[in-house]
Amino acid sequence: MPNTYASRMGTVHRSFIREILKVTADPSIISFAGGLPNPRMFPVEAMKEAAVSVLGTSGPASLQYSTTEGDPVLREFIAGRYSKTKNLSVTPDDLIVTTGSQQCLDLVGKVFLNKGDKVVIESPGYLGAIQSFSLFEPEFVAVPLESDGPDLQRLEEAFADGAKVFYAVPNFQNPSGLSYSLEKRRAVAKLLDKYGVLFVEDDPYGELRFKGEHLPTVHSLQKKPGILLGSFSKIAAPGFRIGWLVASGERRDKLIIAKQAADLHTSTVTQAVMREYVLNNDVEEHIRHICEVYGSHRDVMVAMIDEYFPDTVETTRPDGGMFLWVTLPKGCSSMELFDKAIERKVAFVPGKPFYTDGGGENTLRLNFSNAEPDRIEEGIKRLAESIREFVR
Amino acid sequence: MPNTYASRMGTVHRSFIREILKVTADPSIISFAGGLPNPRMFPVEAMKEAAVSVLGTSGPASLQYSTTEGDPVLREFIAGRYSKTKNLSVTPDDLIVTTGSQQCLDLVGKVFLNKGDKVVIESPGYLGAIQSFSLFEPEFVAVPLESDGPDLQRLEEAFADGAKVFYAVPNFQNPSGLSYSLEKRRAVAKLLDKYGVLFVEDDPYGELRFKGEHLPTVHSLQKKPGILLGSFSKIAAPGFRIGWLVASGERRDKLIIAKQAADLHTSTVTQAVMREYVLNNDVEEHIRHICEVYGSHRDVMVAMIDEYFPDTVETTRPDGGMFLWVTLPKGCSSMELFDKAIERKVAFVPGKPFYTDGGGENTLRLNFSNAEPDRIEEGIKRLAESIREFVR
Repeated sequence: MPNTYASRMGTVHRSFIREILKVTADPSIISFAGGLPNPRMFPVEAMKEAAVSVLGTSGPASLQYSTTEGDPVLREFIAGRYSKTKNLSVTPDDLIVTTGSQQCLDLVGKVFLNKGDKVVIESPGYLGAIQSFSLFEPEFVAVPLESDGPDLQRLEEAFADGAKVFYAVPNFQNPSGLSYSLEKRRAVAKLLDKYGVLFVEDDPYGELRFKGEHLPTVHSLQKKPGILLGSFSKIAAPGFRIGWLVASGERRDKLIIAKQAADLHTSTVTQAVMREYVLNNDVEEHIRHICEVYGSHRDVMVAMIDEYFPDTVETTRPDGGMFLWVTLPKGCSSMELFDKAIERKVAFVPGKPFYTDGGGENTLRLNFSNAEPDRIEEGIKRLAESIREFVR
Repeated sequence: MPNTYASRMGTVHRSFIREILKVTADPSIISFAGGLPNPRMFPVEAMKEAAVSVLGTSGPASLQYSTTEGDPVLREFIAGRYSKTKNLSVTPDDLIVTTGSQQCLDLVGKVFLNKGDKVVIESPGYLGAIQSFSLFEPEFVAVPLESDGPDLQRLEEAFADGAKVFYAVPNFQNPSGLSYSLEKRRAVAKLLDKYGVLFVEDDPYGELRFKGEHLPTVHSLQKKPGILLGSFSKIAAPGFRIGWLVASGERRDKLIIAKQAADLHTSTVTQAVMREYVLNNDVEEHIRHICEVYGSHRDVMVAMIDEYFPDTVETTRPDGGMFLWVTLPKGCSSMELFDKAIERKVAFVPGKPFYTDGGGENTLRLNFSNAEPDRIEEGIKRLAESIREFVR
């Protein structure tokens, strides 16, 4: 028998962003392309202290195999934070620690998706989820994302048409930076309950709110909640690869089985270090500090855009997260703009790959967390020049 | 649409061993059930130094996102060791660092297995692989494992019948402790090449050889090599969850795509700490020390078995690894013996779950790496009493 690949591999491609990041490895290029947190925000010294403490006091246990569901104290901390900061009742038993929240997508795909199942996804949508779910060969149903959340009529049509899963990022979405309004959260929760669609609510950016009030998760507004994903990547550091999911009952049991088959468990030692870190540091203060810094980056980027971009270019103004979304005049291709921008040593991610249903040729994503303010100023000037030259 | 699970979940069960380990959590029970390395062998102090060095000198970078294929210096070290200790030519580009070698099984399943594809597996076979591959709904074809490797006639029949993948653990196999002879390695390599079957060679225990000469991997004897898996779990510590796979060309590219969808990349910080550890410590000396200790455990267990077990009970005598395999007289159920043994406060893993084709009711697995020699002595005495009572 010839060694052919599985048919599921036919639909999955190496991430486009990954390819772009290769181009931007040149340090003379100012890159707004990556989705990277700012490394200045990583609590390096506190993590070093946590590592020394863990290896000094419980070294052998922290280097041994451990349970698939994850460190019980870390799960208790995560559950406690939900009730403290989100008024959401979650028990440690409802939690599974995962190898980044990316792994949650893989586990959800494995446990729930048969080939051809309908997965509703925002348009534009998170590329990592599209890539991960693709391996389970679902049918993607794209629902347009408006400035305050999904197009409700299109969402209901998709649900009525037999959707099994709805995957969304209601807070400061990647790539658009858009958030759902409270009204739309309520309406989405109601539709999910009405049609019995499983909601996979991804919330890596919810903590990064620079202004305004935190809004409740859709999960907390549902009568029959789905699966809620979270991550330490943006509030502590992504290099640990520690995320989690909230699910209960049989659903959680099935996800644990899939997790065990995937990697037995998430690293015992990174979990132990993260546990020491959260127990011995003021996590809330650290998150406030990140919000302050990212908020100032966002303000610089928005101010520069207001000053230098042509009026025909639209930009989202998120109150949090890490991304701005730019819409060029109709007929302009951001893929072509990309080549022009690289000539001027500035990079972004063209929007097209974020659309599973085509379209988005004239959109692009800008990251404001990673570059420092002076680089943001210079980079937006360069980008504005590229756009003016291109649009002309 | 009702929220049913994916059909692939129907064939996968929570690991039986996991359930057994719950019973053995009672510290008064002497357990030979787990597959745990001995925590006394973990290089805790050296890992602490490595962590301090990494976080002190390259903290921000080691806490950031990183590449899917893994740390380049760590891959260089792994490749270098293959050529130094195994005379196997591997370049860093042929390697992907994975979240434990368990993840390799998931990636192989994703990239290669369509529903119904034939996967040849040793009988008894490694439970983690059976569990992981099951999610891709293959047809398992069990080939009996003899004392020197697989039954070659049955193996060729399976290959001729359209097998796509052969998964095996040729060194000190889990669960049996058996290894392939050099002759059988050559014969297996020839058959794989002849039928174009993809060989997935799992080698977590190969380094743990207490006596005799290291034998070449089947991978190195093939004209068209398959995929070779390795792990730091048994030679350093499993809590890091760092394994790797060797694959080249398009095959590696596809595995990287699957890895990216699974968890983006393995923890940057654990890879960095492992890198510092291997660069600044005598890994070969550490492995020799582990072999010395495990070898003495194995000798104690074998001596006690020789003294106390009835002659009608057969036991493998592996020159390495972590497991002995016990065969009770025909008609005896090791599942029933398990209950008797627990009454006497000693535990093992019944062999039946390791057989995908039924059978094995009278077999069981004993781990000798984790328990200390005095506990091994006492435990084998208790087990012998249980067996004598049971066989009578």
